Amino acid sequence: MNRFWNPLVAELTPYAPGEQPCVADLVKLNTNESPLGPSPRVLEAIRAAATDALRLYPDYEATALRATLAAYHGLTPDQVLVGNGSDEVLAFVFVALLKHEAPLLLPDVTYSFYPAYCRLFGIRAETVPLDASMRVHVADYRRPGGAIILSNPNAPTGIALPRAAIARLLADHPDQPVVIDEAYVDFGAETAIPLIKAHPNLLVVQTMSKSRALAGLRVGYALGDAGLIEGLRRVKDSFNSYPLDRLAQAGAVAAIEDEAYFQASRAMVMGNRERLSAGLAALGFSVLPSSANFVFARHEKRGGAELAAALRARAVLARHFAEPERIAPYLRISVGSEREIARLLSALEDILSVEA
Amino acid sequence: MNRFWNPLVAELTPYAPGEQPCVADLVKLNTNESPLGPSPRVLEAIRAAATDALRLYPDYEATALRATLAAYHGLTPDQVLVGNGSDEVLAFVFVALLKHEAPLLLPDVTYSFYPAYCRLFGIRAETVPLDASMRVHVADYRRPGGAIILSNPNAPTGIALPRAAIARLLADHPDQPVVIDEAYVDFGAETAIPLIKAHPNLLVVQTMSKSRALAGLRVGYALGDAGLIEGLRRVKDSFNSYPLDRLAQAGAVAAIEDEAYFQASRAMVMGNRERLSAGLAALGFSVLPSSANFVFARHEKRGGAELAAALRARAVLARHFAEPERIAPYLRISVGSEREIARLLSALEDILSVEA
Repeated sequence: MNRFWNPLVAELTPYAPGEQPCVADLVKLNTNESPLGPSPRVLEAIRAAATDALRLYPDYEATALRATLAAYHGLTPDQVLVGNGSDEVLAFVFVALLKHEAPLLLPDVTYSFYPAYCRLFGIRAETVPLDASMRVHVADYRRPGGAIILSNPNAPTGIALPRAAIARLLADHPDQPVVIDEAYVDFGAETAIPLIKAHPNLLVVQTMSKSRALAGLRVGYALGDAGLIEGLRRVKDSFNSYPLDRLAQAGAVAAIEDEAYFQASRAMVMGNRERLSAGLAALGFSVLPSSANFVFARHEKRGGAELAAALRARAVLARHFAEPERIAPYLRISVGSEREIARLLSALEDILSVEA
Repeated sequence: MNRFWNPLVAELTPYAPGEQPCVADLVKLNTNESPLGPSPRVLEAIRAAATDALRLYPDYEATALRATLAAYHGLTPDQVLVGNGSDEVLAFVFVALLKHEAPLLLPDVTYSFYPAYCRLFGIRAETVPLDASMRVHVADYRRPGGAIILSNPNAPTGIALPRAAIARLLADHPDQPVVIDEAYVDFGAETAIPLIKAHPNLLVVQTMSKSRALAGLRVGYALGDAGLIEGLRRVKDSFNSYPLDRLAQAGAVAAIEDEAYFQASRAMVMGNRERLSAGLAALGFSVLPSSANFVFARHEKRGGAELAAALRARAVLARHFAEPERIAPYLRISVGSEREIARLLSALEDILSVEA
């Protein structure tokens, strides 16, 4: 504790991102990046935007990008807010929509950034346990609460709820904001976007970091009723008017416009996921049914921390979470390229061939 | 007020950025952008970074950029925090260092984003009036307060304090965080950076938007004692781990490395500022002595709002602030190219030739 800090700062437990080490020939399966690069049209758009016009501020309303996203998702531009990755968008969401007298309800196992936002913004949260098979049951949210946030598919389990379950959740909670974080939705889950029209309390958050292969560009967005979006915009403009630079705005528009590339790359990831899951099962792993670009798996005989360390010693990174305790036996493994999956499986085979 | 909002949202008065209209042949002197583009080496670095590597998250510690900035300013990397423009850095500063029991002290006329942060984060602020000639007097800050923030040069006046005055302020307030926002310092003011070593309570904030001509790339940074920087980092990592994308990190390093370009472009702006000030004085304006890339000027006979509107009708944008009332007679005019200055002066001559 430094004596010049706001005392709150000493109480923060910041989010810990997955490591990004510089190791030669590393197989990096710890942060759910795409094994393919972004659309070539994105790279062209960025190069075309790298001009003297960078001396000028970006469009703080991101008019072209919001119009492109609105058209793509069948919405209007006033139903779209864009930000610097979905993490920034979520930060605005926590301030604008999830802080109320009654506690925020969220799963006990979910994206570990959510509790960091709660600590930063002084939001009281109440966790709702997943069931024994690591599933969310929307009926469990029928309890007093000021708002609800779910990841769908959930992270780090990868398990998705069908849209009908989200519709039931919305029917149960017409008076609370309900936020569905769809960072991984494009890998086989159903989006809640069609429910926006009938539900002024539904906000959907998506990102270009995963299915659009643009983790390095930092673009995320929220979709919902114009009233919710206006609340987010007020917070954003009290924080940073220009979070998306000119290059990111140009690249993001191009990403949405290349539908063929998007469809091909997500199909590739889903195909590789099945190969990865089958390979892990053959090595004695239990693999949760994933609708994401990662799998969450535990070995019948060996611990998660031990396996993550042994993999790292073989230049293969997977993510291990020590907390909460019920997920400590698991590894979260991103779906890589065929070559990366082969390297991972071969390393695991090697590790498992030696008695613990 | 939307019923799903955190009630705080209804009370926010967000910052209002200068307009960015799409008008042909516009002379845009309203947001203090550089009349020159960024260094050609910046554009090369960005194009070189527009590769498949965008599929990967950026370095969340911005190691290369922090090392470059530290070396340039004679500091160590743990004395540097980078963010998405100095606006984002300032947001982290307000949360981490400026929220205390006692009020934050700041000038009554200063960067209008500061009150927006105070409202967002619930920070009590007390304004200290500038004197009749629009100057800050550091002796006026000898009153109870939890922290102090000053822009130096101040915005929108453009008037700078010498480093010796900042040193006096620091000597007067060893127990409070003192933040000096040096967005415009490169246009002729003295930076407080040499005072960091002896003052663990001093934080200096700078930006690449003005003197590095990179408003469109969104890069700002804070320099100070490692203890202050650690507080900022904790807030940043509770908000958004990756605010600087790969392109911005690459471009910003290249900007710092091209010292010759930087020196030439700031000299050009300072030269044009003298031409602009002389031209305005010849038309009957009182021009405050500027150490920034803008001037703050009032006409002896015509109001600021009226002149801004008349200029806009002639496709010339200058910034007018209706509040606080004492600055309403003024226009804030960015230092443009020689051609832009000529267009502005000619438009003003035209406007002033007609009786009000």
